[in-house]
Amino acid sequence: MPEFVRILGIDCGTQCLGFGVIDSDGYSHRLVGSGALHPKPTEVLAFRLRTLAASLRQVFIDYAPQVVAVEGVFSKINPRAALQLTHARGVALLLAAEHGVAPVEYAPATVKAMIAGHGRAEKEQVARIVQSLLQIQQPFATGDESDALAIALCYALQQNFARAARQQPRVGEQ
Amino acid sequence: MPEFVRILGIDCGTQCLGFGVIDSDGYSHRLVGSGALHPKPTEVLAFRLRTLAASLRQVFIDYAPQVVAVEGVFSKINPRAALQLTHARGVALLLAAEHGVAPVEYAPATVKAMIAGHGRAEKEQVARIVQSLLQIQQPFATGDESDALAIALCYALQQNFARAARQQPRVGEQ
Repeated sequence: MPEFVRILGIDCGTQCLGFGVIDSDGYSHRLVGSGALHPKPTEVLAFRLRTLAASLRQVFIDYAPQVVAVEGVFSKINPRAALQLTHARGVALLLAAEHGVAPVEYAPATVKAMIAGHGRAEKEQVARIVQSLLQIQQPFATGDESDALAIALCYALQQNFARAARQQPRVGEQ
Repeated sequence: MPEFVRILGIDCGTQCLGFGVIDSDGYSHRLVGSGALHPKPTEVLAFRLRTLAASLRQVFIDYAPQVVAVEGVFSKINPRAALQLTHARGVALLLAAEHGVAPVEYAPATVKAMIAGHGRAEKEQVARIVQSLLQIQQPFATGDESDALAIALCYALQQNFARAARQQPRVGEQ
């Protein structure tokens, strides 16, 4: 990742879907935009997904991300909740593909480990580090927004580490 | 359901998605069309969902269903498989909602019970009864196609039973 790349992170949920867009070259990161989509909780699932899809399509149009990063469904939340959010995840993956991008996926523990240094970090701790990495003054309105930015940053940092590993001289090369 | 209604049944899967369209007034049922969509298994999930969505959108345009019926995810299949097919289910629900219809959902055991008389009926038995109800001569190419038609028929039969129950004279009314 030699130049700045625009990364969209998506934190999936059928009650609330967080998104965060950053520009990053792997070392410095800039917040481009973020938000949380809240479909009406009284609507049936199919109509909530339609509301999410309409808003998320607009995010793809507005920000034209080159990379899309989403959380995998490897978490230890209860199976019913996992199934609920997987519907929204299906819609997010579809929209990314329709935008021409195959999303990268990260396990929740990987995101936490990349951002906060260990896979069991608290949500608030991750949010504070995201705030610091992106030099944002005010705290986030919702955890979904900072989670989405954490996922986007996870991709950025991973590219950085991968490049650093490639550039490191091998033993005996110095 | 006094007149004929067009019902689309969808059997969700990311490897193969079955669809079946029938016209029914609750008593007599007519096959309108059916098929199975097979995205390339070598493609990543997001691109498979895109392929499924493109084909399924065409099904909605071609057949203009008034009712959409899908299987719920209450089955006892392993959690990983359930999560996989829930992605496709999210896409199917989205397309139904974009078509203006809130899908009805049936547990797999309900579909089997409505079609074959008991919730533990074999797949082949359900397929034979679907064939008979729709007066189809040749057996189905795939189980996904007959499963989708079984889901559509489930809605049709349920409307029939509900109407019969409403029309039944109450005790003492005769």
